Amino acid sequence: MIRFECDYAEGAHPAVMEMLQQTNLEQTPGYGEDVWCERARSLIREACCAPEADVHFVVGGTQANLIVVAALLKPYEGVISASTGHIEVHETGAVEATGHKVLAVPEKEGKISAEQVEEVLKGYEKSPTPDHVVKPGMVYISHPTEYGTLYTLKELEELSGVCRKYGVPLFLDGARLAYALAAEGNDIQLPDLARLCDVFYIGGTKTGCLFGEAVVIPDPANGKGFRMMMKQRGGMLAKGRLLGVQFFAMFRDGLYREIGSHADGEAMRIKKALKEKRISLYYESTTNQQFFVLTEAQYAKLSGRYSLSDNGPVEGGRLVRACTSWATKTEDVDSFVADIKEL
Amino acid sequence: MIRFECDYAEGAHPAVMEMLQQTNLEQTPGYGEDVWCERARSLIREACCAPEADVHFVVGGTQANLIVVAALLKPYEGVISASTGHIEVHETGAVEATGHKVLAVPEKEGKISAEQVEEVLKGYEKSPTPDHVVKPGMVYISHPTEYGTLYTLKELEELSGVCRKYGVPLFLDGARLAYALAAEGNDIQLPDLARLCDVFYIGGTKTGCLFGEAVVIPDPANGKGFRMMMKQRGGMLAKGRLLGVQFFAMFRDGLYREIGSHADGEAMRIKKALKEKRISLYYESTTNQQFFVLTEAQYAKLSGRYSLSDNGPVEGGRLVRACTSWATKTEDVDSFVADIKEL
Amino acid sequence: MIRFECDYAEGAHPAVMEMLQQTNLEQTPGYGEDVWCERARSLIREACCAPEADVHFVVGGTQANLIVVAALLKPYEGVISASTGHIEVHETGAVEATGHKVLAVPEKEGKISAEQVEEVLKGYEKSPTPDHVVKPGMVYISHPTEYGTLYTLKELEELSGVCRKYGVPLFLDGARLAYALAAEGNDIQLPDLARLCDVFYIGGTKTGCLFGEAVVIPDPANGKGFRMMMKQRGGMLAKGRLLGVQFFAMFRDGLYREIGSHADGEAMRIKKALKEKRISLYYESTTNQQFFVLTEAQYAKLSGRYSLSDNGPVEGGRLVRACTSWATKTEDVDSFVADIKEL
Amino acid sequence: MIRFECDYAEGAHPAVMEMLQQTNLEQTPGYGEDVWCERARSLIREACCAPEADVHFVVGGTQANLIVVAALLKPYEGVISASTGHIEVHETGAVEATGHKVLAVPEKEGKISAEQVEEVLKGYEKSPTPDHVVKPGMVYISHPTEYGTLYTLKELEELSGVCRKYGVPLFLDGARLAYALAAEGNDIQLPDLARLCDVFYIGGTKTGCLFGEAVVIPDPANGKGFRMMMKQRGGMLAKGRLLGVQFFAMFRDGLYREIGSHADGEAMRIKKALKEKRISLYYESTTNQQFFVLTEAQYAKLSGRYSLSDNGPVEGGRLVRACTSWATKTEDVDSFVADIKEL
Repeated sequence: MIRFECDYAEGAHPAVMEMLQQTNLEQTPGYGEDVWCERARSLIREACCAPEADVHFVVGGTQANLIVVAALLKPYEGVISASTGHIEVHETGAVEATGHKVLAVPEKEGKISAEQVEEVLKGYEKSPTPDHVVKPGMVYISHPTEYGTLYTLKELEELSGVCRKYGVPLFLDGARLAYALAAEGNDIQLPDLARLCDVFYIGGTKTGCLFGEAVVIPDPANGKGFRMMMKQRGGMLAKGRLLGVQFFAMFRDGLYREIGSHADGEAMRIKKALKEKRISLYYESTTNQQFFVLTEAQYAKLSGRYSLSDNGPVEGGRLVRACTSWATKTEDVDSFVADIKEL
Repeated sequence: MIRFECDYAEGAHPAVMEMLQQTNLEQTPGYGEDVWCERARSLIREACCAPEADVHFVVGGTQANLIVVAALLKPYEGVISASTGHIEVHETGAVEATGHKVLAVPEKEGKISAEQVEEVLKGYEKSPTPDHVVKPGMVYISHPTEYGTLYTLKELEELSGVCRKYGVPLFLDGARLAYALAAEGNDIQLPDLARLCDVFYIGGTKTGCLFGEAVVIPDPANGKGFRMMMKQRGGMLAKGRLLGVQFFAMFRDGLYREIGSHADGEAMRIKKALKEKRISLYYESTTNQQFFVLTEAQYAKLSGRYSLSDNGPVEGGRLVRACTSWATKTEDVDSFVADIKEL
Repeated sequence: MIRFECDYAEGAHPAVMEMLQQTNLEQTPGYGEDVWCERARSLIREACCAPEADVHFVVGGTQANLIVVAALLKPYEGVISASTGHIEVHETGAVEATGHKVLAVPEKEGKISAEQVEEVLKGYEKSPTPDHVVKPGMVYISHPTEYGTLYTLKELEELSGVCRKYGVPLFLDGARLAYALAAEGNDIQLPDLARLCDVFYIGGTKTGCLFGEAVVIPDPANGKGFRMMMKQRGGMLAKGRLLGVQFFAMFRDGLYREIGSHADGEAMRIKKALKEKRISLYYESTTNQQFFVLTEAQYAKLSGRYSLSDNGPVEGGRLVRACTSWATKTEDVDSFVADIKEL
Repeated sequence: MIRFECDYAEGAHPAVMEMLQQTNLEQTPGYGEDVWCERARSLIREACCAPEADVHFVVGGTQANLIVVAALLKPYEGVISASTGHIEVHETGAVEATGHKVLAVPEKEGKISAEQVEEVLKGYEKSPTPDHVVKPGMVYISHPTEYGTLYTLKELEELSGVCRKYGVPLFLDGARLAYALAAEGNDIQLPDLARLCDVFYIGGTKTGCLFGEAVVIPDPANGKGFRMMMKQRGGMLAKGRLLGVQFFAMFRDGLYREIGSHADGEAMRIKKALKEKRISLYYESTTNQQFFVLTEAQYAKLSGRYSLSDNGPVEGGRLVRACTSWATKTEDVDSFVADIKEL
């Protein structure tokens, strides 16, 4: 069985494993106060052109999301998210468990617009009963989205503009950020995120690390108490250096981008094969996730050999997701492409 | 200014005030362990044909809602509600503040159906990732709904049937229950609620008490620890007897129903006037809340003399709510009807 | 049975009942935005010499406490309290249910000192692992304390000084404040509270109202979002005017102080009788609560006729509390005093 | 600088690293549903003689603690802990952030007794106001304790007996369990834990893994919904196989015990040196943590070369902790011992 069902089916990129191995017997202080975390922070600040930024490492995406939300919202505030946002649909109510409501708005290709956000924010301001409704206190977006789609720089600037106009922080979930940065047509780079977002994180788990996400808070004034939040929510790793070492490996010489390029490239080969076969693409994605509709017969055939993510029945058949990653082998994509052709 | 904007513009029904006055200097134990609470509990059990029921008195509706939800759900469970449910839209995230998600489903005239609920419950059971999504652990409905509409007995039986099939409790918010019980066409009575719901409350605040809601838990096994929950959430009144006295007054000789009849009757007079004037009724309500669409000119005219609840612009004008209550004066409705005619 | 077990055994002071009766049929907006609340707020601001203060009315003390704590603390902060503080021992974990730790420190006669508070605050600042421990973010005291004892103005000034030095708010629970203000030897008045505390509340439930506490936030900057917190926690009364009316009655012409004087005076008569009988007073209280030690025989004798609060066995017998209130009848104290003499 | 300040200064035991390396490119499902987790679970069940046990892997100790507490307690319940328990003093209020109170009781050498626990449980049952106080709903202990001390089997049996008598679960934090299992004089083995505890965890982070704790729930009926809790609190690792692989390495051929033996042995050499030098041992520990009192001069001398954990001033000097671990080098202990002799 060849697994295309997700981008976390393997361990870590060999370069990451090697660094973990090399540093394994070094003695360091715990909890992220070691030299490797410091080095990784420096590299990330540099990559983001954000010399003052707070950078915190946590183990996983749900942890990052719940800690950021709990850290930045007041108790009576909620977070605006696409109705397909990870925090709304795939975290077992992690945000609500911190006491906050997710204010879901309809999405388009996984994205929400500045107009939509402004409508919610203005709606609150004009509410006849503002004390009786949840105050929108943050905007959460993903880049790439859950569907592999991308915001344009213009869209991000507009979202950021609305957020700043209304004084609510913009939080960008970059669990798969590597695959955005390297994607064809993407015009958002790390310094744009540092300039336009109030918090964002650079994913590691799905992009070649064993685990780990780097939360970046460009203006450290927004990060007050963040380490206490991390500890309280079980998000502060004792051997924090493991996170530092991994992100050091990612950012020391361009590995993070290289991983993105590889995965996106392989995904484009799959996309091309699907298009040629006139298999319907459900979303227009240039990143490592491809969603497409297979007939039952096609699905049966492919899933005998490839593990795909099954998103249930849709018009015309079954909505299926294939993911590539840093670990995707060219020969596996070759065979997948060949098998698509033969459908 | 004559107020039709809500059903809590006055104090309490004179009979309630009188009993509070009469009992004012009696000395009783606190926290609902007095003889008046006991008497009121007996009357309510009797009225519900639920001799074993736990009956708890809390001060208000939001309190009742948040305590019931927090008491009955496991941490990873959420509560299914109409997208217009009070807990979803009018409680500043009170349910989320207890750590639970509201699972909103689209409503029809303020109601949700057994089919919709089953779809959510079945959807969870069939989820490919049940550990990653909120488990639906309770169903919340209101009777009357936020729009004054009513469930039929058949609808309630079906909802109850689905809930029991899937083992999730059915919770009915009866903040305005008096106005349902007395409504033309209503075929649900208190014993039906006790038979079909796992928890419900009999509203007092909006139906003639100074404040207070009587939470009924027909099977006391479901009520374990409820008093601790009440105390913890600030819902246990020191002078609990005030709640007992008021509900005693309500249920000793039919006052609760009488109040409903009066308010519904006055509302029907308003409804009739609106219909005759061909003013569009937004919902088909037989209870004390009437929603209708006024042109801006009509609204300007009426709102000079009557305080109405303004629900914002809709097609054809402005959506307006008029409420009657136990306190609504016949002469005020007379004048309102006359003014409607003259629009 | 004559009840001395608590100060909430009766309804409300007749003057309060009368005002509730008089205003019963007035129509007002809900949720504390009516003219009675406004009038009561003005009177309270005036009594406190705090013209800018935010004044919010909630139904009960636990509600007041949990809302204030949740409103003012950051998620990783806790509240310093005497180990006998109400929030630590008598609220079923209400503060923890909002996510915050109570940082209990040993008490002396129910009080904590500026030195103790500074030790905790300095201890946090000097902690080798500040990210791993709860940050003390507020100080909670009661006046009178749970034992009826009083802070001196000097003690309060010192506490306030330490709090301001370290930038943490001082919160004073005045559930029984009337009995402090009127007590012999008390040198703290309302304007002192407004000057020295960041939040405090003026109790109503235990001092002659049916229910209700007036939360005073002298600097409105500290009260941002407080109404949303109230709504979210079920602490915003629909018929908010009931609270306004009651506090208006309390503060319009000195009733609040009068009630305190009456109760304290009757308590002093009991105290005198106990002293003359050489019954050991457990705390030196000049307010409406008297704690004393009865032998089992004495307790058996008195408790046949008087309901007293039994605080369990202590050296020399049983620790018992007698409370007076606005409602305490002079003839009941006469008979109690006579029975004490005859022990 | 040679680090004895904690037992998580290095990465993972070489055998663990090797297995992670070997399995790195294997493709597996995520979230702990892979074959490595299954194998590790089997080994742990076998080692515990608990064939039915639920075994769940989480990343760290605070996470394990907060998830277990939140999963097992009702909202109005708290957890009994030694006043020095990790959950009480070193987790930034993680338990309170889940809404629950830690009910701290005084410790003796880091331990609490069955008598103490029974006193709390009986105290609750006899409380005159059980609705107003937090119900003790769980007992939390650590083995070894924070001070390196050990429960005896008899003590554990007594604790377990009291817990079962009162129907509250016993939860044992085994963050350093390896060092207990291998300690001289320890008479508690894994099957004893499975027999006597309702939940416990086998630490990995401090005992040779990169990270990870294995939560064991001997009776799976107590583990209902545990995976949902893990996900919700950010404790479910996407690449769950990393935890499986590590615990497989630990339990496949006795590595876990071997690690304990090594560390305890080195600690005993330090202890012996301290005793010979008549340096006062603060606790009588036979495990990898040694607490002792150095004069300021001694501390200055040693801390120039060795990183020790400084627990502040105590009578006679400064309380210092030295830890050994799987990674402690014999030559480093040699030099430490020599330097102690020369003090």
